[in-house]
Amino acid sequence: MPPKKKSKPKKVVNLAEDATEVLAKVRELRKKTAAKIDEEGKKENADDYGDFDPSTMLKVEDLDTGAVAEKIENIAQRIAKDVMEGRGYTFTVPSRASSNQHYVKSLDRIVLGGNKGTRTFSSVSEVRKTTITARCMQLIHNILGKGIHITKRDLFYTDVKLFVKQAESDGVLDDLSTMIGCTRSNLNVVASDKGLVVGRVQFEEDGDPIDCTRMGVGGKAIPPYTDKIDNIQSDAEFILLVEKDAVYMRLAEDRFYHRYPCIIITAKGQPDVATRMFLRRLKYELKIPVLGLFDSDPYGLKILSVYMSGSKNMSYDSAHLTTPDIKWLGIRPSDLDRYGLPEQCRLDMTDADISTGKIMIEEDFIKANPKWVKEMELMLKTKKKAEIQALSSFGFQYISEDYLPRKLREGDWI
Amino acid sequence: MPPKKKSKPKKVVNLAEDATEVLAKVRELRKKTAAKIDEEGKKENADDYGDFDPSTMLKVEDLDTGAVAEKIENIAQRIAKDVMEGRGYTFTVPSRASSNQHYVKSLDRIVLGGNKGTRTFSSVSEVRKTTITARCMQLIHNILGKGIHITKRDLFYTDVKLFVKQAESDGVLDDLSTMIGCTRSNLNVVASDKGLVVGRVQFEEDGDPIDCTRMGVGGKAIPPYTDKIDNIQSDAEFILLVEKDAVYMRLAEDRFYHRYPCIIITAKGQPDVATRMFLRRLKYELKIPVLGLFDSDPYGLKILSVYMSGSKNMSYDSAHLTTPDIKWLGIRPSDLDRYGLPEQCRLDMTDADISTGKIMIEEDFIKANPKWVKEMELMLKTKKKAEIQALSSFGFQYISEDYLPRKLREGDWI
Repeated sequence: MPPKKKSKPKKVVNLAEDATEVLAKVRELRKKTAAKIDEEGKKENADDYGDFDPSTMLKVEDLDTGAVAEKIENIAQRIAKDVMEGRGYTFTVPSRASSNQHYVKSLDRIVLGGNKGTRTFSSVSEVRKTTITARCMQLIHNILGKGIHITKRDLFYTDVKLFVKQAESDGVLDDLSTMIGCTRSNLNVVASDKGLVVGRVQFEEDGDPIDCTRMGVGGKAIPPYTDKIDNIQSDAEFILLVEKDAVYMRLAEDRFYHRYPCIIITAKGQPDVATRMFLRRLKYELKIPVLGLFDSDPYGLKILSVYMSGSKNMSYDSAHLTTPDIKWLGIRPSDLDRYGLPEQCRLDMTDADISTGKIMIEEDFIKANPKWVKEMELMLKTKKKAEIQALSSFGFQYISEDYLPRKLREGDWI
Repeated sequence: MPPKKKSKPKKVVNLAEDATEVLAKVRELRKKTAAKIDEEGKKENADDYGDFDPSTMLKVEDLDTGAVAEKIENIAQRIAKDVMEGRGYTFTVPSRASSNQHYVKSLDRIVLGGNKGTRTFSSVSEVRKTTITARCMQLIHNILGKGIHITKRDLFYTDVKLFVKQAESDGVLDDLSTMIGCTRSNLNVVASDKGLVVGRVQFEEDGDPIDCTRMGVGGKAIPPYTDKIDNIQSDAEFILLVEKDAVYMRLAEDRFYHRYPCIIITAKGQPDVATRMFLRRLKYELKIPVLGLFDSDPYGLKILSVYMSGSKNMSYDSAHLTTPDIKWLGIRPSDLDRYGLPEQCRLDMTDADISTGKIMIEEDFIKANPKWVKEMELMLKTKKKAEIQALSSFGFQYISEDYLPRKLREGDWI
């Protein structure tokens, strides 16, 4: 019953360019990126916080399991003391409301301010949330002791009657992170994994040696627990971050990374926490640039912004989740004419696209880069969008054999 | 900037059972499974086709690239001849309408009957579809010549103006498979991949050696192109097919397969074509049983049925996509009482659940197994459902340390 072996026709590789020549500009960028990363430690002390008072910023730290457990115990002890001394049962919880979220230009990410609220057991309107907070604290303390990871859904299921909806226990997880002052991953509670990686990188995952140059055409699943990754090694010149898994599959099958040493990553659309942390670790440990390949539409830009500046919901953890300075390689609105994309591959933007685009162009992370503003203006003027797959109209391997090598050679990123 | 190394507390492994004893019943099942697979070749000649005339059944074959290209050329030549000789430009296309789909009990899968329709260029209502069919044939012929794979989305994008909606080019792909008489994978057009595998199996993927016992906690992405997989080796006693990735993650982190030699697979919900083909290949090449771990609700059963009997949409290819005789390990409706699942983890079935359940119980693949019918009756009587994660209420590792070892030892599958 097993399918017969397929005859494998030889691949037509028709690349005139020499990889060394193609990569010259990438190497320059790489040097700059490494220098910038080395400088970055000083940046957090810079003055340019705009209207925002940096002393109020809520920062969480990447803590080890023992430290998180200890902090939970401290909170519990303090509460017990409060109760014993007649001050009642109250949690102090940093606010995650949008009024407490600030984009800081010099950091190039969204951070959380210092506003706090309380959650009191004796208040009829707050008693439920207070109980949920205490229960989650207890459960987290339990898994930390065992050294295991669970999913948000697992957590919800240990006490369905109390939590009722998963959104309730999920929300409290973010509260706990800010209360404890640790990243959400430190709580050992993860969402499901969806990222993939292939290319020039080797690491150890829970002790197993993983070589992503030998992962076939499917690649390696990025583990939900990035803290199990150690010893990252690579000879890559850059990271190619692709929005869509279709593009990832094309580049993986063509073994693009053999010719142009790079690491190819995708989160298949909207990125999960694990992929974002993995990307950040790769960039900072390897000190190499990240080039982004996204659809030329407001939604593609929105996804890119989550990688770069973080989502508002987890702004307290933006320092560990965001990868600043991702270069926008393509497809940019100006590419449509530049690469002569056939008219039928340019789609009309819908009214919703246009209004999202108008909001995006006002976003701080776009305004921070005049070239990005120009591209967005062009998109809104022409009212045209295009998916990366539109390049298939020139041939299915056009992206790996022409478009990307040309982009790299010309250093055509912004 | 890289996160600090975590202190790794030792795992609490508290398993009284000896793996050999636990696996005794699994080994019996394995022998039966292997015998059944060896017998299966004869089955297609059996008499029990019910009302269905087996001579009309449309079967597709797993063909190699050259053979598919040749068949496309034959169709093109025939059409050219028809046109030259004044008979006009018409495709003959097997019908995929539900009236042409039949569940065959002795095969335990849905198959396509012999009804056919035509698609004529000179008909105003059919000219568009005829053109799309010809265009897709041409594009497929092109990628087969290059020996590459593309996604459905890539295909759509090569001629947006003609296809207009992706559903149009997607549908024609299935038509082409039936016209050519090959599997859809033979066309080298794939959907995106989403399956994961971890555990006791080794294979070659596009020439790279892959060892799934050394894939860390994230596991290996099942490649969208299963035809690139060769040389499957394994010492596993069974395949554990899990519906949800949360359960997969729990078992992968606990390295369940180290203690109980097995291969763990998930498609994260509704399975994609690649995962279904991969599962089938593993079962038939390794001749080992498949045990299924699904939610105890009609939707879980529905997903299980897609693995077993196939989806109606691709019934023409059911022989290559379905894995018959998957054992229903859990969570079964009778488990709720048997394992004393706390009341708060049993959720009330919605009206929609109940009506789906009532349809399911009438489905041939359920009726084929009286024990399954009994379980469904119990579900509909108690009107309760439960997700696998409900087991977390006994502790997060209950599933890997108690529930599964007990199920295996008792041979508690149906």
